[in-house]
Amino acid sequence: MNEFDFLKKLKQNFNFDLTGDDCAVLPFANGTDLLVTADMLVEGIDFRLEWASPEDVGRKSLAVSLSDIAAMGGDAKWALFSMGIPDRLWNEDFLFPFYNGINKLAQEFGVRIAGGDISRNPGPMVIDSIVVGSCPEDAAVLRSGAKEGDLICVTGPLGGAAGGLRILESGARGQPEPEFESQEPVSRQLNPTPQLILGNILRTRRLVTSMIDISDGLSSDLPHICERSGKGAVIDAALVPVDPNLEKIDPELLLPFNSPLDAALNGGEDFELLFTSPAAVRKEVEELGCCVIGRIVADPSTLDITADGSSRRMRPSGYAHFGEDQ
Amino acid sequence: MNEFDFLKKLKQNFNFDLTGDDCAVLPFANGTDLLVTADMLVEGIDFRLEWASPEDVGRKSLAVSLSDIAAMGGDAKWALFSMGIPDRLWNEDFLFPFYNGINKLAQEFGVRIAGGDISRNPGPMVIDSIVVGSCPEDAAVLRSGAKEGDLICVTGPLGGAAGGLRILESGARGQPEPEFESQEPVSRQLNPTPQLILGNILRTRRLVTSMIDISDGLSSDLPHICERSGKGAVIDAALVPVDPNLEKIDPELLLPFNSPLDAALNGGEDFELLFTSPAAVRKEVEELGCCVIGRIVADPSTLDITADGSSRRMRPSGYAHFGEDQ
Repeated sequence: MNEFDFLKKLKQNFNFDLTGDDCAVLPFANGTDLLVTADMLVEGIDFRLEWASPEDVGRKSLAVSLSDIAAMGGDAKWALFSMGIPDRLWNEDFLFPFYNGINKLAQEFGVRIAGGDISRNPGPMVIDSIVVGSCPEDAAVLRSGAKEGDLICVTGPLGGAAGGLRILESGARGQPEPEFESQEPVSRQLNPTPQLILGNILRTRRLVTSMIDISDGLSSDLPHICERSGKGAVIDAALVPVDPNLEKIDPELLLPFNSPLDAALNGGEDFELLFTSPAAVRKEVEELGCCVIGRIVADPSTLDITADGSSRRMRPSGYAHFGEDQ
Repeated sequence: MNEFDFLKKLKQNFNFDLTGDDCAVLPFANGTDLLVTADMLVEGIDFRLEWASPEDVGRKSLAVSLSDIAAMGGDAKWALFSMGIPDRLWNEDFLFPFYNGINKLAQEFGVRIAGGDISRNPGPMVIDSIVVGSCPEDAAVLRSGAKEGDLICVTGPLGGAAGGLRILESGARGQPEPEFESQEPVSRQLNPTPQLILGNILRTRRLVTSMIDISDGLSSDLPHICERSGKGAVIDAALVPVDPNLEKIDPELLLPFNSPLDAALNGGEDFELLFTSPAAVRKEVEELGCCVIGRIVADPSTLDITADGSSRRMRPSGYAHFGEDQ
């Protein structure tokens, strides 16, 4: 039984009917829904201290949860951090810049740190990033709202973070020659900015029918929208906004991605939003800097990408999550 | 620099002014405050699979956070669980009964599971238990409200869970002879019930001025109330409700606690609440089954326990937290 089947079975058994979107949407008060999201980051899997500074790790820990609030079109309000810290990191040199990274991003978006928990952990460092936000009642943008004929859109260039990760993994960062060319993808990987403002604008102007943050890669996250909405999708490869910096990276270094487009489709962690819009608002969406990359179709078994007049099935090959995040 | 000093410095540096009580109290909507708490449990430190069943671990994971809501006098509404799961536990035999344990306790208190995150963790199993609750605006019972002359009270017997832990650690559980006598403390350790109902009654009847859940032991948690309230405390040893089951445990087995009273003062995890009440409501508090064990005094440097006419300083010797929970 694979991970997704196992989780499905778990959900069926235990009636976890509130789970399954980027955030839990909870009816807390008249007129306002509560948004809550939690993301667990594990050292060695979600971040590596060999190449990410403590400040980078702090920033990214908060960014992943803010991105979930962004995907609902919500407002982020408070953050809590539960941390399992190994002895070797229980010191000022690590924890002060770590919290500095959290704090700077929190201030950028008016988020307040409201608590959490600190535990000793004999294993790798574990960070659970919890963000609480809000949205007007019943207004949160779900994954399930895509309609036939809707435009499929993304908020910005894709693949840069995956390119940055390859540069870091290869050890090419800081080498005299590729340094200049590799700065931007590396920064895209290490210093993400969640699309809270754009997500909010898209919702308040009623430009979106469904939305998700691209955490695992377009090819992995688009199927979540299709499945929840009971629809299919066709992507036009020529319209996918491939991060222009990927062209500057040595193709050998980019492997196993065999092209910049491959990285844009299958690389994760760009912190962009994937959403669907009624065809009538195309101009407004494009004026916000978003790119239309395809169409929602009626048949839920369709998940195609077209290029040079031919069409093939798009296969998810982004980072395979162990589980599911919310 | 010890853990508490380090955390203090961290808070000063980063203005974490919302932290420091059992829950974060967040002004979410007119008339209603939001309560949020997160507790990280680490395998081998907070639970051991050698003696706790998967169902026990699930139940306890939720119970620790519900107890934080209880300590504010709040209503628990939703729970989220972020989990770092090692491969050896990624199976039905562990996860199904684990979630069963969560679910049973959740149903008992009308709490709904609203999501979370599941990650692979090469280290020990890590569970972050997040509970979201509510309280009427400005009504949450803080640690900071104790007044001079207030009664110091607890909701129930103390030390049983610590005794149960000693039985488990010693391997005496299941041995023919001590089995009967050790059932209750062991169950107290493995199957705690948070005092949500009593916490709520105490708040709604306006019987409390401050409250905290006893997680680390009376001698460790009472100082939190004193420090936050700027007051001192005097406890009468004869009034401390020592769990009667401790008398049945072999004194050798109870070591390093040198008496049942020692376990009651310094053992943690009883899931009882410690609170202060105006002297005028003594009768009402006692009718709820709570025990008056001492008095709040003006001098914040006083933290004494009196026994047989003499008085000595009460020294915290419960389980020393690495950090601070909220």
